[in-house]
Amino acid sequence: MQLIDGKATAATIKSEIKQQVEQMVAAGRRRPHLAAILVGHDGGSETYVKNKVLACEACGFESTLLRFEDDITEAELLSHVQSLNENPAVDGFIVQLPLPKHIDEQRVIEAIDYRKDVDGFHPINVGRMAIGLPCFISATPKGILELLRRYNVPTSGRKCVILGRSNIVGKPMAQLMMQKQYGDATVTVCHSRSATLVDECRKADILIAAIGQPAFVKAEMVKPGAVVIDVGTTRVSDASRKSGYRLQGDVDFEQVAPLCSLITPVPGGVGPMTICMLMQNTLAAATRAYY
Amino acid sequence: MQLIDGKATAATIKSEIKQQVEQMVAAGRRRPHLAAILVGHDGGSETYVKNKVLACEACGFESTLLRFEDDITEAELLSHVQSLNENPAVDGFIVQLPLPKHIDEQRVIEAIDYRKDVDGFHPINVGRMAIGLPCFISATPKGILELLRRYNVPTSGRKCVILGRSNIVGKPMAQLMMQKQYGDATVTVCHSRSATLVDECRKADILIAAIGQPAFVKAEMVKPGAVVIDVGTTRVSDASRKSGYRLQGDVDFEQVAPLCSLITPVPGGVGPMTICMLMQNTLAAATRAYY
Repeated sequence: MQLIDGKATAATIKSEIKQQVEQMVAAGRRRPHLAAILVGHDGGSETYVKNKVLACEACGFESTLLRFEDDITEAELLSHVQSLNENPAVDGFIVQLPLPKHIDEQRVIEAIDYRKDVDGFHPINVGRMAIGLPCFISATPKGILELLRRYNVPTSGRKCVILGRSNIVGKPMAQLMMQKQYGDATVTVCHSRSATLVDECRKADILIAAIGQPAFVKAEMVKPGAVVIDVGTTRVSDASRKSGYRLQGDVDFEQVAPLCSLITPVPGGVGPMTICMLMQNTLAAATRAYY
Repeated sequence: MQLIDGKATAATIKSEIKQQVEQMVAAGRRRPHLAAILVGHDGGSETYVKNKVLACEACGFESTLLRFEDDITEAELLSHVQSLNENPAVDGFIVQLPLPKHIDEQRVIEAIDYRKDVDGFHPINVGRMAIGLPCFISATPKGILELLRRYNVPTSGRKCVILGRSNIVGKPMAQLMMQKQYGDATVTVCHSRSATLVDECRKADILIAAIGQPAFVKAEMVKPGAVVIDVGTTRVSDASRKSGYRLQGDVDFEQVAPLCSLITPVPGGVGPMTICMLMQNTLAAATRAYY
């Protein structure tokens, strides 16, 4: 069994990006510029945005953080989105989710110019990904593809089972894994209603768990030699930690790891790749790689 | 074994649409209006477009056919698309594919106002379908969903295997079948590279063949009692026919039909539903059901 080290892979990729950026700057071009809109003071969102700003620094990007209180109106927020759409000095931007309940998230997402939509959530990017056209691919599925590629996991023709059908992980992951140009795998998506979930998992060469249920995947659900990717990050209480909690994946790591050829730990697996892929998307926006 | 009668189902749906249209007209609204652009004189395209015009008549729709020679430039074609986008008397329109090689099909598709894109090929519609938002769903997968619904086929939690990963059938079918609001099934997509294709098929409660290989699905690939949907329509030569050919599905019907609980014939299964779903989309465009 080998661990897939997302943290180290993410560090490598960031240094690759940084190198490319310094070459751009040396050639007289400006640095890629990512902007982020953060509404309110949600603890999780604060942390994510802070880490995104730090990642920008690590990559040599310029970054701008626009903060608003959570009583901002939808119309005001949309006008800031519009300003970023029109600002030629901003290559790409994100609106950190979730937004306060009085704001229609989907309307905000669709207001973002798809050519600056580095989160890949705009329907144009979602649709182009589905039909295999160049586009911004959202960070978590893109990060998983990148881990599989960098660890030389064969995917073509292999059975890949995805647990969970969320719009940000399960569904796009399935679309990517089934396409010739990406995974080229035989893809099965299982979810809470799947009658044959355990059977499907046991046949998987590659098992991607994104179901949001701590330690859901047990040893008897994993084929010996499988590659297991754990997207889950649930906080479970842990009296032995100073914080009082630890992050638990969707995989029962103790049981499952010995069976695997490769497995991602939680934390330190998929998580660190996510922000790193946002940086790749921002670089792609700055170099007009897709649009 | 029961046949799924697509021809009869399509006739029923068209009469339902016609009834709704007459109510609209009685209430003082105008008839739904579908326009079609046909470039060149491809035999298949001529037939499809003729059948779409006839279906419009059957549904009480207005229809307009714009014909161009195959030396039309891309710019000219785009300007006609733009006119239809701007014409308030046209609710929806299609550009019959394929287009001549000197025209970029994807550019033409993306030039169509997604609110009039009754073929459901624009990335905005593809993307909105993927994330479960109201949108135009392309005709073939939508027609298959409708057949499953009208024949009361249970799909939730069942294993659905899709053979083929084309952008117009396999991929959207997978997306629809996995979503809670549509199929809610456990979905597997197999294709030419799938190592476990036969095994997967044998486990399927619902098998949807859209692989374009005549009589590919044999008896040993089908679970007794399965529901089999055959999307294939390949012309194979047949000396016993006056035309010299017959339409052959992806399923070896003689072998497979006795095993099934339900099966679509070719022709007369999925085919007739396709144009009928285009009519439903046109009605939805006229009533602003999605946008």
